[in-house]
Amino acid sequence: MEKQMNIQPRLAAGIRDYLPEDMIPRQKMLDAIRRTFELYGFVPLDTPGLELEEVLTGGDPAFNKQIFRAGLGDLEDADLALRFDLTVPLARVIAQYGSQLEKPFKRYQMGKVWRGEKPQAGRFREFVQFDADIVGSSRPESDAEIIALMGATMEALGFENYLVRVNNRKILNGLASFIGFDASKSPDVLRIIDKMDKIEWAGVKAELEKELGFGTKEFDALRKFLDLMEGEQEGLLEKVRALMSNSPIALEGVAELEEISKSVIALGVPREKWVIDLSVARGLGYYTGPVFETILTDLPSIGSVFGGGRYDDLVERFMASSIPAVGASVGVDRIFAAMEKLGIVKKEKTVSKVLVLNFDPDCSAVGQSVLSSLRRAGVPSEIYLGRELTFKAQLAYAVKQEFPVVIIIGSREKEAGVVQVKDMNARKQDSVAFSDVPDAVKRIVDL
Amino acid sequence: MEKQMNIQPRLAAGIRDYLPEDMIPRQKMLDAIRRTFELYGFVPLDTPGLELEEVLTGGDPAFNKQIFRAGLGDLEDADLALRFDLTVPLARVIAQYGSQLEKPFKRYQMGKVWRGEKPQAGRFREFVQFDADIVGSSRPESDAEIIALMGATMEALGFENYLVRVNNRKILNGLASFIGFDASKSPDVLRIIDKMDKIEWAGVKAELEKELGFGTKEFDALRKFLDLMEGEQEGLLEKVRALMSNSPIALEGVAELEEISKSVIALGVPREKWVIDLSVARGLGYYTGPVFETILTDLPSIGSVFGGGRYDDLVERFMASSIPAVGASVGVDRIFAAMEKLGIVKKEKTVSKVLVLNFDPDCSAVGQSVLSSLRRAGVPSEIYLGRELTFKAQLAYAVKQEFPVVIIIGSREKEAGVVQVKDMNARKQDSVAFSDVPDAVKRIVDL
Repeated sequence: MEKQMNIQPRLAAGIRDYLPEDMIPRQKMLDAIRRTFELYGFVPLDTPGLELEEVLTGGDPAFNKQIFRAGLGDLEDADLALRFDLTVPLARVIAQYGSQLEKPFKRYQMGKVWRGEKPQAGRFREFVQFDADIVGSSRPESDAEIIALMGATMEALGFENYLVRVNNRKILNGLASFIGFDASKSPDVLRIIDKMDKIEWAGVKAELEKELGFGTKEFDALRKFLDLMEGEQEGLLEKVRALMSNSPIALEGVAELEEISKSVIALGVPREKWVIDLSVARGLGYYTGPVFETILTDLPSIGSVFGGGRYDDLVERFMASSIPAVGASVGVDRIFAAMEKLGIVKKEKTVSKVLVLNFDPDCSAVGQSVLSSLRRAGVPSEIYLGRELTFKAQLAYAVKQEFPVVIIIGSREKEAGVVQVKDMNARKQDSVAFSDVPDAVKRIVDL
Repeated sequence: MEKQMNIQPRLAAGIRDYLPEDMIPRQKMLDAIRRTFELYGFVPLDTPGLELEEVLTGGDPAFNKQIFRAGLGDLEDADLALRFDLTVPLARVIAQYGSQLEKPFKRYQMGKVWRGEKPQAGRFREFVQFDADIVGSSRPESDAEIIALMGATMEALGFENYLVRVNNRKILNGLASFIGFDASKSPDVLRIIDKMDKIEWAGVKAELEKELGFGTKEFDALRKFLDLMEGEQEGLLEKVRALMSNSPIALEGVAELEEISKSVIALGVPREKWVIDLSVARGLGYYTGPVFETILTDLPSIGSVFGGGRYDDLVERFMASSIPAVGASVGVDRIFAAMEKLGIVKKEKTVSKVLVLNFDPDCSAVGQSVLSSLRRAGVPSEIYLGRELTFKAQLAYAVKQEFPVVIIIGSREKEAGVVQVKDMNARKQDSVAFSDVPDAVKRIVDL
């Protein structure tokens, strides 16, 4: 006992709790995302947090720096690790269960992932990912489904001002050859262009000159591309096609975006809620075609809150064949922070609509019986179970915990076969017969 | 690439996936539990999977055999571990946040836990726990709340034949002194009695004689207790009070059960759904008072599916003070297995109600527009995105995936401004104008 008392109740660095006041609205957010994903026909999958390390890293030792390894006892033979995303486990599932899973496989998954990144403000070592992917379809309609899903999710969460930005990596991959370099130089060109915000055009120019030997001809070509990037939506893809006609891969990218656009329109995504944006690159190396991201136009600085793309090499780690896939991942923590900032959600102290006070022991049983009738009617309700014994102290507790309705039963009420139903927001109360309590409460609160 | 292809897609021993056909009904089960817990006023808490090892083990090295340790890199300084239950993290939260959490604190938590037990049939190293606890109330009404919650949860899950069995460890703790031994011998007496099913009364008798030196007087006293244990409910607690009048702790236990019984009745738990059962002990050492378990009377062999009790030493690892608590934990996997066995749930292939066929490229956009109208009306729906291009093959897919409704749009339908809405179960189809599709579908399926 004395030894045990030395233990300090605390969390490891970069790890957090969600106390009820945050978890109640967070749960509602996660439910809204889930409902939307199911509305779009995605089915739930659950995979373990703990996987074989080689499955997660693909045998790549460079991963070990970020991955949490795990095992029993002295950890000497530890061959397990905690997943760092939900995409590698999806690939494993696709490779492992084969034809048992009908294709296209539209699955969603919500779950915790772990990354050993340096803890810093707003960045955690354990966090929730919420992904939707369509595996086994290379149709542009599938890309459009993901874009429509992104829009619908934002609407379901209550965002009014958001924008889904769509691009195609194939256009970016064609950039080097369009400018006159070998296609393999595209990543270098992109990497340098990406610094525009920080070092401006003069800095970008200097680096391109120094690192890649850009001259007048190359700068002219690049400038034309950048002009399109910064220009109008109207006729954009036609302009890209005309400009980059010497790059087959870019033309392929344009054609795909045209098909996707048709589907996005047919799927009813409002025209002002999505754009083709040639500047969208998405960091991850594994995207091979269309890429998407969602920004909040009220909070552009927080970046993308829901992004993804097509990655057709999903299962290469496990199988010789390749399986096409497209998907997107919600930035759960980022989106929740945005919802708080915009006042779309607020902290909530209770899920209950009603607190039955419990200050007279002779009336407890009647109170429990009224409580039971409320629950049978589907009204989340509680009876006071704490230490305070007076009406006044229990009412103060109800105020503090923000119960919308309080029910009061003293000996007078018990005798008369009624309770006092107190509407805490309207600050008024009525005598209600026992059997009418559920209806009276339902007139006050929304369920 | 060649190196990567060596990796076999597989899971570690004792670890499992939930593919959609299992996850869809499982999710519904978890939702039903959650709704019931919230109906009873429990609020959600979320704590991390990864905690400091000393917090989880309380510094007890014996834990290391079952606990998964975790860390970055070479694991030399690994001081983290995966939680093995949700109760220790609850204790940490209570100790860590102190008065920030209003008491009584009624929280529920669902989450994965990890235990390094030897993998065997039906026992996994990573599994879900779903707990509800009331912290900071020693009132018998709180015990009754947990009992009522257990019953309501079983009802919400669709079980008709279940029984909540209630006992008090204080009565069992009083057993030794009632028989004439020191109170410290109660665990030994109970341990031997617990073998009744296996070695019968003769075997139990022999062990009690040999190990504890039972003689005629002791056997007579024990026999009287066992007769009550096996006897009728009617007046049971009165009989225990009369029999064990020499044991203050047993009398305290009886008085508590009387109070709890009054509340359980007032809370409207049907009389045939719960009993006082003196044989309920619950394995865990930490229960200090009332204990509960729920059995399925159709499947008694699977044991308790929802059990718990009062444990008033919750935070002793972290704090000098003691905080009373009572709670219960759903055996999620066991209860789901029972639901499958009893036919309450079945595998489900899709969450969608409608598949829009997509066999004529000229009609895709119209199909997507109809799809969009269904989703706006809240009907989970999909459009066919696979490789099959013929009507016949797509319809076969719809049959295989068990979509209740199929929508067919060919060039003829498109021209006429209608679609065919096919009720797959009733095997009949109707021509429906585009704008009437959502209503037509809602007449066929339940949402």
